[in-house]
Amino acid sequence: MKKRPFIHVNCAMSADGKIAGSDRKQVRISSDEDLSRARELRKRYDAVLVGIGTIIADDPHLTIKGASFYNNPIRIVIDPHGRTPKDAQVIDGRSPTLILTDDDCTEEWGTETETIKCGSPFSLAKAMELLAGFGIERILIEGGGKTIASFFKEGFVDKYSVFVGGLLIGGRDSPTPVDGEGWICENGLTLKLKSAKVLGNGVLITYDVR
Amino acid sequence: MKKRPFIHVNCAMSADGKIAGSDRKQVRISSDEDLSRARELRKRYDAVLVGIGTIIADDPHLTIKGASFYNNPIRIVIDPHGRTPKDAQVIDGRSPTLILTDDDCTEEWGTETETIKCGSPFSLAKAMELLAGFGIERILIEGGGKTIASFFKEGFVDKYSVFVGGLLIGGRDSPTPVDGEGWICENGLTLKLKSAKVLGNGVLITYDVR
Repeated sequence: MKKRPFIHVNCAMSADGKIAGSDRKQVRISSDEDLSRARELRKRYDAVLVGIGTIIADDPHLTIKGASFYNNPIRIVIDPHGRTPKDAQVIDGRSPTLILTDDDCTEEWGTETETIKCGSPFSLAKAMELLAGFGIERILIEGGGKTIASFFKEGFVDKYSVFVGGLLIGGRDSPTPVDGEGWICENGLTLKLKSAKVLGNGVLITYDVR
Repeated sequence: MKKRPFIHVNCAMSADGKIAGSDRKQVRISSDEDLSRARELRKRYDAVLVGIGTIIADDPHLTIKGASFYNNPIRIVIDPHGRTPKDAQVIDGRSPTLILTDDDCTEEWGTETETIKCGSPFSLAKAMELLAGFGIERILIEGGGKTIASFFKEGFVDKYSVFVGGLLIGGRDSPTPVDGEGWICENGLTLKLKSAKVLGNGVLITYDVR
């Protein structure tokens, strides 16, 4: 297998396994303690990655408060068809941004944003190989459920941490940490529990994959 | 408000918030330690309750291994339209069973199974009032997601415990602990974390409601 970066998926879900409501409306799930932890976590990775669905739904900036252009992690968006809005915070120039598209995408996003062509159709394996080639060794994935599912399906995840908050959301159509189509693999993917820690009104659970 | 039993919802979900796969196929989520705990839990309640969806999907018996007819908890099925199969394990005669239907249901299920009419349309509030009137003071709810959502929506739950297993299932259509239509209440229902305990390869989290 080709070289790829170390991948850590980090997210927060409600006590009934949701990351937002069925209308995709965001609600705060993390405790103050977990929010601080999640912010600190970004400092330990070369890059923070999300899917285009998260960019459109939440418009995150993915930077570290007070960090300079070069001290922020690189921001990466999985966006095969180039749907990242021109006014998205993720391309606000506060740190470098890589937008990963398929070979047919012709969109451009300005000077601090680099477009990386990853095959036709889009290949996550090719994307990982290219990122490793750029010297990106450690990536933190923050969402959404479809993107996270695609990484797990390819076997590209090394670590999974989930904060289970003191909140119930409900709704069979509400997004969850790992969505996508059907099972991520037959009978599910077994994880190895590493630790569980109370953080305010919820619990941070960390697992190794494999 | 009328008297109602104390209600404890207990379930197990994967580390991505699912109780089964998108095809509803069951997979083991609980660790050995959590299975033992869940079995012991039944002894502390007057009755164990599930919805008709769980009866049809999983055919559970809801009894305690080795317990006599009178030592087992009463089994309760929320089944407004009387869809419980005549050969379901829940009416196997190993303990008394109450099937809660609407007033229009004419199904009958034999000698050890009592049908309780709960209004037209079916009213959960009326059901709780009737059960309290029968002297049922403590009910353990074990699923599924739609039934659990209906109890939370009515404000009828006192305690929620969820085992988060070391497994990922995936799939945006996979059932979760609290399903149903939309939010259970605006911005979600805040819970109070009581405890978190590692049980084998997962974590049991217990919350008080309100």
